[in-house]
Amino acid sequence: MKTVASKKELGLGWIWQNGRLVHEGAARIDPSDRGLLLGDGLFETMLATHNEVPLLPRHLARLLASAVKLGIPVPYDAAQFTAAIRSLLDVEALSQAAVRLTLTRGPGPRGLAIPSCTLPTVMIRAFPSMTSSPPSPARAIVSSVPRNERSPTSGMKTLACLDQVLALRQARERGCDDAIMLNTAGQVACATAANVFVAMGGTITTPDLHQGILPGVTRARLLERWPHVRERPLTQADLASADEIFLTNSLIGVRPLVELDSKPIGSGQPGPITCEAADILWSR
Amino acid sequence: MKTVASKKELGLGWIWQNGRLVHEGAARIDPSDRGLLLGDGLFETMLATHNEVPLLPRHLARLLASAVKLGIPVPYDAAQFTAAIRSLLDVEALSQAAVRLTLTRGPGPRGLAIPSCTLPTVMIRAFPSMTSSPPSPARAIVSSVPRNERSPTSGMKTLACLDQVLALRQARERGCDDAIMLNTAGQVACATAANVFVAMGGTITTPDLHQGILPGVTRARLLERWPHVRERPLTQADLASADEIFLTNSLIGVRPLVELDSKPIGSGQPGPITCEAADILWSR
Repeated sequence: MKTVASKKELGLGWIWQNGRLVHEGAARIDPSDRGLLLGDGLFETMLATHNEVPLLPRHLARLLASAVKLGIPVPYDAAQFTAAIRSLLDVEALSQAAVRLTLTRGPGPRGLAIPSCTLPTVMIRAFPSMTSSPPSPARAIVSSVPRNERSPTSGMKTLACLDQVLALRQARERGCDDAIMLNTAGQVACATAANVFVAMGGTITTPDLHQGILPGVTRARLLERWPHVRERPLTQADLASADEIFLTNSLIGVRPLVELDSKPIGSGQPGPITCEAADILWSR
Repeated sequence: MKTVASKKELGLGWIWQNGRLVHEGAARIDPSDRGLLLGDGLFETMLATHNEVPLLPRHLARLLASAVKLGIPVPYDAAQFTAAIRSLLDVEALSQAAVRLTLTRGPGPRGLAIPSCTLPTVMIRAFPSMTSSPPSPARAIVSSVPRNERSPTSGMKTLACLDQVLALRQARERGCDDAIMLNTAGQVACATAANVFVAMGGTITTPDLHQGILPGVTRARLLERWPHVRERPLTQADLASADEIFLTNSLIGVRPLVELDSKPIGSGQPGPITCEAADILWSR
């Protein structure tokens, strides 16, 4: 039986690369790019609706803050990124999409040393957004793969995602949707690509930024609307005794977690606090 | 003043890519390659002398062991890699070279989940070997960037080298050549791209494999020849009281460390044990 290959599979999608829209098949990535060879770069994944990324300024602020720490110049400004994304959504004929912006330090000579002169690589792509609304309830495991909260890169969305890849693989091998990662101190950090919120006896808690988590854009929006959420360390025991747990990220918004390590969380159904969080984010 | 661009800078070098020798400028790297987007891959850096890599079997064994754990198929065997490297050295007219073999999981759809069907990317390049023989004595700092000995990838040579890039940057900012990285427990792990050996009062010690280190090929060769070397955790205090410290990797062999955090190590000169280690490796 023949299957119809998608545009992406055929390399017929588009990519915005350093100022130009090109067919994916014609995109040129330098084999010396430090993003490929050393994971020396950053990315953002953003939700586009109605032909734009409403939260682009927040994503760019996060990207810039990390890029400054890494010493990677960002060669475009917000207006240029906005126009780039618009042109990409236009040519891809997508109004709702997952947009990935990748920034690498660019090509360099062999070795770890940062070259004195670099030409960063910027790539933007748009993918049909598969997100269902509301997102389906998820089942998770607690992964044995830790987040390293002591690394200077732990709060950055770097290209080094292999630990998350392995944590998600553990979850899938056990028939689950996602994995909760603990940090090296054994405290709760995050899911493989989402922040974690826990409701217990009337209080809502999310791990603070020292726990090896990414400062999520959706996490920040929720904290602004819900000043009563406590940011503090959470233990595995806290997860086990939670009434509700939910995950947040820019693509899914809020996703209820209804089962952890084969045990139901609370009633085993999305709870009222989770639903309220989802409502708050949709009603911005 | 004009400078003469090297062949590499002009993209005129060669690359062996998935079975074919191509000009670097004509090499095609898929913008969906998970190596680039997620750091989902491995590499080896090997020393070629007299048109071959004498330690290739050891490097391939390490690569394969990690690839099996990650579930990345290695689509070539030792004979094919040998022939590939030979053809590359030949076309580059190099007999002594640093050879980098990169293996990624290949292209995939957006997201962390490992695709059920993958076509790995294999790239090999050869660079003129800049190694002086014997290597110049090095000055190092102890970096604040930790190795995560708890990660399942800590013993693998993955593409995720950003922490090492940052540790080396710290060293360079302080006018030094390299950085010693501690693990999350505060024990000595390794240098940014080398293993560490410490001589103290007649005993030689190197961190054991649980300290978040790479199982270095040169480290293993030295342990085979020197069964009296102890593999055990080392503290920062051990470094401070060492008579000699030296670094090992496949390109430099043995490099003496003569200064740590601005204080001389032992006499401040390469010591007799370091010289003996270098002799042992050269006399194989």
